[in-house]
Amino acid sequence: MLIVMEQGATSEMVAEVCRAVAALGLQAHPMAGSLRIAIGVTGNKHRIASDRIASLPGVSEIIHVTPPYRLVSRQTQAADTVVDVDGVSIGGPAFVVIAGPCSVESEEQCFAIAEKVSAAGAKLFRGGAFKPRTSPYSFQGLGEPGLRILRRVRERFGLKIVTEAVDTDSVETVAEFTDVLQIGARSMQNYSLLKKAGRTGKPILLKRGRSATLEELLMAAEYVLAEGNSRLILCERGVRTFASHTRNTLDLSAVPYVKANSHLPIIVDPSHGTGRRDQIVPLSRAALAVGADGLMVEVHHRPEQALSDGAQAITPDVFAELMIQLGRLAAALERTLA
Amino acid sequence: MLIVMEQGATSEMVAEVCRAVAALGLQAHPMAGSLRIAIGVTGNKHRIASDRIASLPGVSEIIHVTPPYRLVSRQTQAADTVVDVDGVSIGGPAFVVIAGPCSVESEEQCFAIAEKVSAAGAKLFRGGAFKPRTSPYSFQGLGEPGLRILRRVRERFGLKIVTEAVDTDSVETVAEFTDVLQIGARSMQNYSLLKKAGRTGKPILLKRGRSATLEELLMAAEYVLAEGNSRLILCERGVRTFASHTRNTLDLSAVPYVKANSHLPIIVDPSHGTGRRDQIVPLSRAALAVGADGLMVEVHHRPEQALSDGAQAITPDVFAELMIQLGRLAAALERTLA
Amino acid sequence: MLIVMEQGATSEMVAEVCRAVAALGLQAHPMAGSLRIAIGVTGNKHRIASDRIASLPGVSEIIHVTPPYRLVSRQTQAADTVVDVDGVSIGGPAFVVIAGPCSVESEEQCFAIAEKVSAAGAKLFRGGAFKPRTSPYSFQGLGEPGLRILRRVRERFGLKIVTEAVDTDSVETVAEFTDVLQIGARSMQNYSLLKKAGRTGKPILLKRGRSATLEELLMAAEYVLAEGNSRLILCERGVRTFASHTRNTLDLSAVPYVKANSHLPIIVDPSHGTGRRDQIVPLSRAALAVGADGLMVEVHHRPEQALSDGAQAITPDVFAELMIQLGRLAAALERTLA
Amino acid sequence: MLIVMEQGATSEMVAEVCRAVAALGLQAHPMAGSLRIAIGVTGNKHRIASDRIASLPGVSEIIHVTPPYRLVSRQTQAADTVVDVDGVSIGGPAFVVIAGPCSVESEEQCFAIAEKVSAAGAKLFRGGAFKPRTSPYSFQGLGEPGLRILRRVRERFGLKIVTEAVDTDSVETVAEFTDVLQIGARSMQNYSLLKKAGRTGKPILLKRGRSATLEELLMAAEYVLAEGNSRLILCERGVRTFASHTRNTLDLSAVPYVKANSHLPIIVDPSHGTGRRDQIVPLSRAALAVGADGLMVEVHHRPEQALSDGAQAITPDVFAELMIQLGRLAAALERTLA
Repeated sequence: MLIVMEQGATSEMVAEVCRAVAALGLQAHPMAGSLRIAIGVTGNKHRIASDRIASLPGVSEIIHVTPPYRLVSRQTQAADTVVDVDGVSIGGPAFVVIAGPCSVESEEQCFAIAEKVSAAGAKLFRGGAFKPRTSPYSFQGLGEPGLRILRRVRERFGLKIVTEAVDTDSVETVAEFTDVLQIGARSMQNYSLLKKAGRTGKPILLKRGRSATLEELLMAAEYVLAEGNSRLILCERGVRTFASHTRNTLDLSAVPYVKANSHLPIIVDPSHGTGRRDQIVPLSRAALAVGADGLMVEVHHRPEQALSDGAQAITPDVFAELMIQLGRLAAALERTLA
Repeated sequence: MLIVMEQGATSEMVAEVCRAVAALGLQAHPMAGSLRIAIGVTGNKHRIASDRIASLPGVSEIIHVTPPYRLVSRQTQAADTVVDVDGVSIGGPAFVVIAGPCSVESEEQCFAIAEKVSAAGAKLFRGGAFKPRTSPYSFQGLGEPGLRILRRVRERFGLKIVTEAVDTDSVETVAEFTDVLQIGARSMQNYSLLKKAGRTGKPILLKRGRSATLEELLMAAEYVLAEGNSRLILCERGVRTFASHTRNTLDLSAVPYVKANSHLPIIVDPSHGTGRRDQIVPLSRAALAVGADGLMVEVHHRPEQALSDGAQAITPDVFAELMIQLGRLAAALERTLA
Repeated sequence: MLIVMEQGATSEMVAEVCRAVAALGLQAHPMAGSLRIAIGVTGNKHRIASDRIASLPGVSEIIHVTPPYRLVSRQTQAADTVVDVDGVSIGGPAFVVIAGPCSVESEEQCFAIAEKVSAAGAKLFRGGAFKPRTSPYSFQGLGEPGLRILRRVRERFGLKIVTEAVDTDSVETVAEFTDVLQIGARSMQNYSLLKKAGRTGKPILLKRGRSATLEELLMAAEYVLAEGNSRLILCERGVRTFASHTRNTLDLSAVPYVKANSHLPIIVDPSHGTGRRDQIVPLSRAALAVGADGLMVEVHHRPEQALSDGAQAITPDVFAELMIQLGRLAAALERTLA
Repeated sequence: MLIVMEQGATSEMVAEVCRAVAALGLQAHPMAGSLRIAIGVTGNKHRIASDRIASLPGVSEIIHVTPPYRLVSRQTQAADTVVDVDGVSIGGPAFVVIAGPCSVESEEQCFAIAEKVSAAGAKLFRGGAFKPRTSPYSFQGLGEPGLRILRRVRERFGLKIVTEAVDTDSVETVAEFTDVLQIGARSMQNYSLLKKAGRTGKPILLKRGRSATLEELLMAAEYVLAEGNSRLILCERGVRTFASHTRNTLDLSAVPYVKANSHLPIIVDPSHGTGRRDQIVPLSRAALAVGADGLMVEVHHRPEQALSDGAQAITPDVFAELMIQLGRLAAALERTLA
């Protein structure tokens, strides 16, 4: 940590900051510059809680060097975390594809889609039973009956299930029915939900918030790992920017950054990441090429009848063609499809 | 609503869209342009759920004209909503100031601050007992004992209390102790929390999410009003941008926009909105000048000992000076301080 | 400057960095932390050009403490710069209002507007003769005939003129006709233009680029001051964000930041800053309240016939009412209108 | 175009808008909704200049359906534009790689890098002789002597040259020496430069501005094509967002969008797009996978001695390895490397 003093800071102010640093059991290294004094701080194993020092008289700025995350850090665990989802590994050499509709609408709908995506090579099935919707007047999901449909998809097609929990009241119920518990972008900083989700022991799929830095995403993951659950998969799904040609701006640089700084796997969701059907196939290829561990993509057999987000779903035919392209690319990258 | 067809859309595709519009009980008005066909839709009282139409073959784009919010709309209620907080009116001619520390740390701390801000003219006292923190290793608030301290502040100084509820598990407890229930920026789209908070019947202070459009803020408010609770106060607290000289970018244009489009009161929080102590006083003056209904500002008697956000708190002396400036400005604007 | 080494950096790498620092005539202060080594650098009077050090083996990150600007810095000149525009002072206690149409369209139009805004108290007249337009098919301005109209406005009404130069070819011609040379937001980083504008010796009005940090704005100003011209006025005119209710997001926190870090005056342009007529009056009041040195606002006597940006212009009547409000506010703030 | 009237608009206001539409030779189609009236406009071949209509009494909003660009539009020219750069085709099936240092520093430096990138398969050499720099105190490029070095690179290694023109004064000189004239991100809306660059007849490489929408990028390209020069290559190089782990956020969704809406080729610059060496290789792979026509990447043989942007340059060895990876990926995508 570096503490930068204001230009007019007195030597007494500097001394007080040094005392405060020492009181934390750390070493202060004052360095007199031409214009002002800076104080290097060493001895800390984790990022220092600097709120109090920042408020001392004469302090202009605190610059952290140590990242704030610990358990999720690559420095804490050098080896990649591979999350086992009932036999499907996420985070290993194989690229894993999750597919399915935005919302669970009916058994007939889910079965129709599951049959196709399973045949094309998807290993996990996604579908929302509880839907966080911007408008209270939009379809909010089938709730628990939707979870039961997902269970039947699992039984019939062998696909593992990914579905979202939206609040602490329902998280345990959702955990009973699903293989992977999704925490959505809107909930990334719902810490009560993160803790309770972590305690279910289920694999967690944590989506990046629309305006979250990667440091914040990793800190949200830290909440789950701090509950003793390290079966966590991160998901890049686009961030909010001024750009208007897509719903969000998919930030593929998240993948190399996460790989360098954390041991956790990371997948990409180009459906929410762009919100436009014609972007899904090219950005899915890019997600594989950039080094992601997998992909989550919305597929609907009748997009024009979808109860939510039909405009960003691809059809099973397009999905099948995508899987063929991904297979070729994976081979060129010396990887495989799960 | 305007449905824009793709350039190569066939007349059969246009006909199918018109049938889909008619099936919703609405009127379709096809207009043949030089390059492509657009279909105007009329007859709707509310924004149309357009997901299915957007997915029909040949549809390029859907453009909504009707805003998605209803109960919060100025079109639904022409008169300003004035929220009565146990005798203090928010949304009327008087400008209301809410002050207090970021976190409740101790009774001694709260009393010291409350005495000063009350003497300077604040009518409500803020302080967090449950704190949503980016890091699981940061101080998370005192919890229920903190709520009890706030109750004693209320008893002793007559200040009304504003404090945050962070999850559905604790919202009812918080509601028991507080006069105004705050929903924080991170929770703006925590719909389960919004609904449960709405049902407490307490006045709600709803903060804008860091990357929320005003339409999304108003839709979040709609969740509360849909529970039968229209005692809602909006709060602009800065949005996330590329700008790095402040923690967030305070968007004061939110105030005239909300005033034009909604009947709900809106206040401004320059403390979170900028994250820098030296910005608080000038932006508080600007908040009054732009037409806000009030202000929420962090005050700490010993910022260098604050357990959270000390760098953005002003001292009671600065606060007292601010109140004097606000009083003069209010008079010039033909308003008063509450 | 702080040089943060990678975790696995060898002592030889550290030594090489220290040698590179010494070669610049500066002092290196290595500090061994628990996880990695950081090297404080002192002795520099200005920000160090760190590109080479950043590329040395083992260097993870460079953190600058010294701001990159020099001549514009408050540390270089403690007293406020007051720019004299032929008798009108910008940067002193009086709040200066610049008003006029987006584009110069005709003498009749300019005279009609100038008469009204002059009567209402404006001291400077704005109007574009050369217009940078997103589309090559939009009205590009009258060019030199427009400049001649502005000269006649000056002669007839005594208003000082502010108009934009868009390229190095025309900057000298524009300088002949105008009192203040405007560099628009799109040109903020057109360094050739900044240099040539600086060399004209005219007062410069430099608008913040749509995605410029304040550090970048001050660095652009540095280009002008480095040419020996310190008659420079900064202008906050909104930045590009995800928010869609205004064309740009007006960032009023720019004003206190610039006042703290630079001696240069700063004004606010709420017309481009919001792009919406109903935002102009409230945000103009806020600009005065936040401490700006002045205001630039678009006024058109027949907005519905404006050749550009009619939707963001206010009428002379609204402008006159605004000036009355500003006068009252200025008095409450112990300031005056120029 | 759709004109949305305010809720209280009178029938006389509607009639006036319809007359204004008719005066433009277009058809107005009023549609009475439950809450307000909208007026569809048809008959236009291009986007209508709507400024005046937007300012008519009672008009709330104008919604454009027709994109504002014409010559660059896929609707104007269905076939892909393939730009021939002295025998190297950009925009055809082959993926073209441009490599070289940020700045031209010396002949020795350029020759050393050119030899390596040429051997690895690059077809074009990049290097700045005129450098737009945020600070006036940073290295500004060698100027014309730099251009002469680039000419010798061309003669010796057969690499085609890409270099930037920063102002109208130097654009013709730069055009004499280069094969492709680069317009940098800061200059994307420098319309005088765009026009003069277009008139040189040289192939133009137009980089997206840091905060430019794709519509604005295409409109900037329109300025060049309107000068009769359609040899234009677009370049995605990252946009400015709140994200802090990279210098800019590389927006790969630009590629499918441009391919769908324009006939122009588009390449990707991951060096400026991320500003971090460890992101270059993965995002270069992603650029190919997403469907770009080529890549521009910074390579320096001694990054630690680069005069600018050393931290984002890769070494010739890493570049050679990248080319091998790209070759494999191209084959899997049924493409080739140029």
